[in-house]
Amino acid sequence: MRLFLSFLLMIGTSGHVFSQSSDESSIRQIYNEELARGKSYQMLEYLTTHIGARLSGSPGAAAAVEWGRHELDNFADSVFLQPVMVPHWVRGQKEVGRVINSKKRGVVEMNVCALGMSVGTGPAGVTGSIVEVKSFDELKQLGEKNVKGKIVFFNRPMDPTKFNTFEAYGGAVEQRALGPSEAAKYGAVGVIVRSMGLNQEDYPHTGGLRYTPNIAKLPAIAISTKHADLLSKILKDEKDIQFYFETHCETLPDAPSFNVVAELVGSEFPNEIIVVGGHLDSWDLAQGAHDDGAGCVQSMEVLRLFKMIGYKPKRTIRVVLFMNEENGLRGGLEYARQAELKKEKHIAALESDDGGFTPRGFTMTASEAVRSKIKGWKPLLEPYGLYDFSHEGGGADIGPLQAQGVPIIGFLPDSQRYFDYHHTQEDTIDKVSKRELELGAASMASLIYLIDKYGL
Amino acid sequence: MRLFLSFLLMIGTSGHVFSQSSDESSIRQIYNEELARGKSYQMLEYLTTHIGARLSGSPGAAAAVEWGRHELDNFADSVFLQPVMVPHWVRGQKEVGRVINSKKRGVVEMNVCALGMSVGTGPAGVTGSIVEVKSFDELKQLGEKNVKGKIVFFNRPMDPTKFNTFEAYGGAVEQRALGPSEAAKYGAVGVIVRSMGLNQEDYPHTGGLRYTPNIAKLPAIAISTKHADLLSKILKDEKDIQFYFETHCETLPDAPSFNVVAELVGSEFPNEIIVVGGHLDSWDLAQGAHDDGAGCVQSMEVLRLFKMIGYKPKRTIRVVLFMNEENGLRGGLEYARQAELKKEKHIAALESDDGGFTPRGFTMTASEAVRSKIKGWKPLLEPYGLYDFSHEGGGADIGPLQAQGVPIIGFLPDSQRYFDYHHTQEDTIDKVSKRELELGAASMASLIYLIDKYGL
Repeated sequence: MRLFLSFLLMIGTSGHVFSQSSDESSIRQIYNEELARGKSYQMLEYLTTHIGARLSGSPGAAAAVEWGRHELDNFADSVFLQPVMVPHWVRGQKEVGRVINSKKRGVVEMNVCALGMSVGTGPAGVTGSIVEVKSFDELKQLGEKNVKGKIVFFNRPMDPTKFNTFEAYGGAVEQRALGPSEAAKYGAVGVIVRSMGLNQEDYPHTGGLRYTPNIAKLPAIAISTKHADLLSKILKDEKDIQFYFETHCETLPDAPSFNVVAELVGSEFPNEIIVVGGHLDSWDLAQGAHDDGAGCVQSMEVLRLFKMIGYKPKRTIRVVLFMNEENGLRGGLEYARQAELKKEKHIAALESDDGGFTPRGFTMTASEAVRSKIKGWKPLLEPYGLYDFSHEGGGADIGPLQAQGVPIIGFLPDSQRYFDYHHTQEDTIDKVSKRELELGAASMASLIYLIDKYGL
Repeated sequence: MRLFLSFLLMIGTSGHVFSQSSDESSIRQIYNEELARGKSYQMLEYLTTHIGARLSGSPGAAAAVEWGRHELDNFADSVFLQPVMVPHWVRGQKEVGRVINSKKRGVVEMNVCALGMSVGTGPAGVTGSIVEVKSFDELKQLGEKNVKGKIVFFNRPMDPTKFNTFEAYGGAVEQRALGPSEAAKYGAVGVIVRSMGLNQEDYPHTGGLRYTPNIAKLPAIAISTKHADLLSKILKDEKDIQFYFETHCETLPDAPSFNVVAELVGSEFPNEIIVVGGHLDSWDLAQGAHDDGAGCVQSMEVLRLFKMIGYKPKRTIRVVLFMNEENGLRGGLEYARQAELKKEKHIAALESDDGGFTPRGFTMTASEAVRSKIKGWKPLLEPYGLYDFSHEGGGADIGPLQAQGVPIIGFLPDSQRYFDYHHTQEDTIDKVSKRELELGAASMASLIYLIDKYGL
């Protein structure tokens, strides 16, 4: 009996060791391939420097679609373009913003930019005195009598004490997204929003606003964090300050565009689909290197890595470069709609849209069983710095798949530098570390490998 | 009995909860203070831009000592300078390195720099044909008949597949440190070493060499990774290539310098000392922002944070800004010598010298009991991204304390970007993320707080 038990234990142990060590070695191969001969950085370099900004409806976005299709053709079984109509907002000529009558300082030029989807002021601009507030509550308390005819300046900073900067963003971004409509309720004529950044910076951060239906659409700008502080100081120093700003943005009719979709067809379960993706569109002020060129090339790299190491997936691995995450989410919505129409079976969706920074782990929105299964792979992934599997999350573009019961997974990179660049002119390729980007691609490929091999 | 047991359990539980939650809240306070009002970045900005390079014996090093003393005076109980004689190597005028007779390319200028502590060629330079090798074994096999009178080119790259870049460095750096003396054994006249970097770069990495006693001292240069590849390609293309290089470095007599030492005196156990430090000297090519200005300001910040949150340590917290880590370790050796002479009781030493990048954990060289105790604090530290306590380590400057049985701890930041800048002109303040630096300072302060409170 004792001998027999030992024998059973031996089988159990060696079986476990074998599988563990085969996975260990496949994952090692993925990382080796990417770190020694990865193409993610080279692809990102092309996308960011040869194509650059690619807001939905722009020529850059169209070029990016063609680029994505062409690149994926090199290592996918098939590539197709999924049509989707997208919002088409254009910034127009460079914005101006200035204090026009400071007694101490004269005219003070400020670094500003229109918020995405904002209406423009046109050449007449907007002039008004400023009401600075830190919250919607404060605005409400001031009420129409203090706000009417004025420009509301939302100046609540992101909270620097949050360890995860996305939490700090989450605590401030309503000012940008909803502030213009909130201000309109009390008769304001325009809105200035403190940029969503943690540092003292010279450049403004753009990003989308959402007008509430049936409320006046106010023109709205972001102001750099340095100038937000300066403006606040001027307002404390002097009464009767007048501010002028001029924006030339407008929303054109919806434009045709595409999600780029590429597949490696599964050898055993071709109808079981695992999605990995990022969004191809970016704001217009920069190259969209971290947001979200990084996520696109990392997702593309998953397919290429499988090819390179000779891994033939059991299930269908589908790369999706989503269009229009930044100002509409039309790509993500259309992808989910088509999946439902075609009754496709998605077993998981993974998105990378938190930047190409050094990996920390994965976030998940899924059943407890799925979460446990993924957490069970931690020993295989922790040697590569992936230790954090504890948070809920996913990605905007794959979010709509959730309604179909698809487990949603987010790649979780380190968040510390993300908001130094987010939605600004500074989101350029030189801010991306080649190795950090590559580790992200290899992390994603490793997780997809495990999901493909063991299911979810 | 049952009631009594429940009561005991309640005490136990609530006692545990209290202590855990008090530590949680102290650590939260440390992070809040640093992330909202930290001075580490401001200090580093001054050190790197107003003082800049500070190789041992240089005016920059002397200025840095004065700066350190002055800054620490703001928040330490006492500051003193610990005298130490240091090597005094100077680079002299800019180096040149070139292929002088390529048939296809003519004269090809290369980006090179003298290795630290190298003898110079003087104005006559060194000319010779090149023997490229990847290892000391290969050199040995070639032997004197193939090497004599020639320039040896060590061109083994760092292994990009290592997750921790310090491992990749460890696998290649013998070429720089020992290569010149190895080459001299076979009658070489000069040495070129591939820069210790993982990227394709235009700039060379300096760093120290160590001549073996009683072997000829060959002049030695580092070549940028791009030019190492180019040189290797030229050597494959063409026979009879001649290389010329010229360096003007020299070693002057040892110079007087100092470790900067500052204390908060312990309230209960003033004779128990906890050291936290980095090294104040840097290579001469850049500002030494990550190496190791970051470690210095993070260590200084530990004291300032304790002051700011009103924490009075039980034990004496001693900040040491060590002199001469880069080319001699005289500061670290002298500090340990004095500690032994004075029979000081050091209960732990923590060094930050792996860059001001986002924190990952701590490395340790200590008894199993000490390691377990520190690992036991992981639940308090993991919310701040500190999860890795598994590796052996410490720091060069605190290494000599090990002989006295002192537990040695290294701050472990993410390693991915370190060798993009290490020992190069690129190690500048703009490569440091303010938040990443601050998180490092807060991580170190939190660990020191726990060591101080509970002992080791």
